[in-house]
Amino acid sequence: MLLAIDVGNTRIKSAVFENNIILEQSVFLKNELEKKIKNILKNFPKVTNLVVASVGNLEKDVFLKLDKNLKVDFITHENQFPFKNRYATPKTLGIDRMVLASGATLQFKNQNRLVIDAGTCITYDFINDNDEYLGGAISPGLRLRYEALHNFTAKLPLLALENPENFIGNSTAESIHSGVVNGVLNEIDGFIAEYKQIYPKFTIILTGGDAVFLAKRLKNTIFANSNFLLESLNHLFQYKINND
Amino acid sequence: MLLAIDVGNTRIKSAVFENNIILEQSVFLKNELEKKIKNILKNFPKVTNLVVASVGNLEKDVFLKLDKNLKVDFITHENQFPFKNRYATPKTLGIDRMVLASGATLQFKNQNRLVIDAGTCITYDFINDNDEYLGGAISPGLRLRYEALHNFTAKLPLLALENPENFIGNSTAESIHSGVVNGVLNEIDGFIAEYKQIYPKFTIILTGGDAVFLAKRLKNTIFANSNFLLESLNHLFQYKINND
Repeated sequence: MLLAIDVGNTRIKSAVFENNIILEQSVFLKNELEKKIKNILKNFPKVTNLVVASVGNLEKDVFLKLDKNLKVDFITHENQFPFKNRYATPKTLGIDRMVLASGATLQFKNQNRLVIDAGTCITYDFINDNDEYLGGAISPGLRLRYEALHNFTAKLPLLALENPENFIGNSTAESIHSGVVNGVLNEIDGFIAEYKQIYPKFTIILTGGDAVFLAKRLKNTIFANSNFLLESLNHLFQYKINND
Repeated sequence: MLLAIDVGNTRIKSAVFENNIILEQSVFLKNELEKKIKNILKNFPKVTNLVVASVGNLEKDVFLKLDKNLKVDFITHENQFPFKNRYATPKTLGIDRMVLASGATLQFKNQNRLVIDAGTCITYDFINDNDEYLGGAISPGLRLRYEALHNFTAKLPLLALENPENFIGNSTAESIHSGVVNGVLNEIDGFIAEYKQIYPKFTIILTGGDAVFLAKRLKNTIFANSNFLLESLNHLFQYKINND
């Protein structure tokens, strides 16, 4: 049994896998890590392995200390990945993006794939049908845009995510909701349209904390899979076993 | 002679007007205000009036103290404006957006107008051909997006604005440039497309510090006018004189 952990910029997500099926899932903050993981291990004593992808500031030591009997796979740039990395600066490619690209490569074989991860940041990653990772883009996520508007201006309030009632916002709050939400939707639909001009056919995987909210509202019909990063960690773990 | 001052979230811009023509223009930071304005007044002793729009934290007192002989018009929500305000929360509509809407109403008569101000924030403001201000949207500007990516994540660097070489960024820096720049371009082109579905015909005014950078790259052909807010202050000042 495998425990997969995704340490993001804001939150930590975990899932217990048995034969590619998720038995349990949790979302928590960094200061809750030890308590939460120990609890999960108590409930799932068959867990023998831990696989971790971290873009937030948690290093391998933290996970080694959790339980002496666990084997810990802490994904780094030295891992073997199922795609050819065509990034000009492979060492600075975020581990989260490498895991997502791995999952896309392993789950959707022999096709062009675009992974859109809408979390703290929105990352776009493209892997072509020759399993070459080409790169993509990074922009601020929904929450970050609300925070930026508040933190860097003198007079704008900090709002929580809300669907704008009208396209033309007729109050300060509605203007902000329209600018942030419609801005992100226009951005994603625009990126997809630009990719289509280069690659007429590709599979889109939409994941991350805001995937469900966005999938309902995009012009493009996309199935949201919020667990794609955790599932990708599981696939990358299996890939490693099969290639060792 | 009129000195118009636009106090933004980041910078202050000023222009000396004589008969609707700009004689001198300056851009400076808040701590340079007194020195810069006194210098301008020395070079243009015929300036009799000051008109100020402030969204940054500078209040009227600061300008009253500059020179006792100057008449100061500090634009507030109590001013008379040339449009009918249909905003549900008129008191929280930013003064900058009210001045832009005034300029659009006075300069482009009897038509639908969309003002896009690409500065610290990107604001969208729509005034219909009946001179009704309907509202719009607010989203983070180019610089704010770069800052948000750096300030709210553990590992992304702070970059200066640069045009991405490729649509698919093949390094962390190129991914960020693509996400920020192409993100904003997709957002603006997307907003324009949505307005076109409601109003088949309207005039677009693109202004703000990033107007020239963006105008070159948008799918829509738009003429950038970086001075539109200062020009609008001048027009609003004339409007007030004519209506007093």
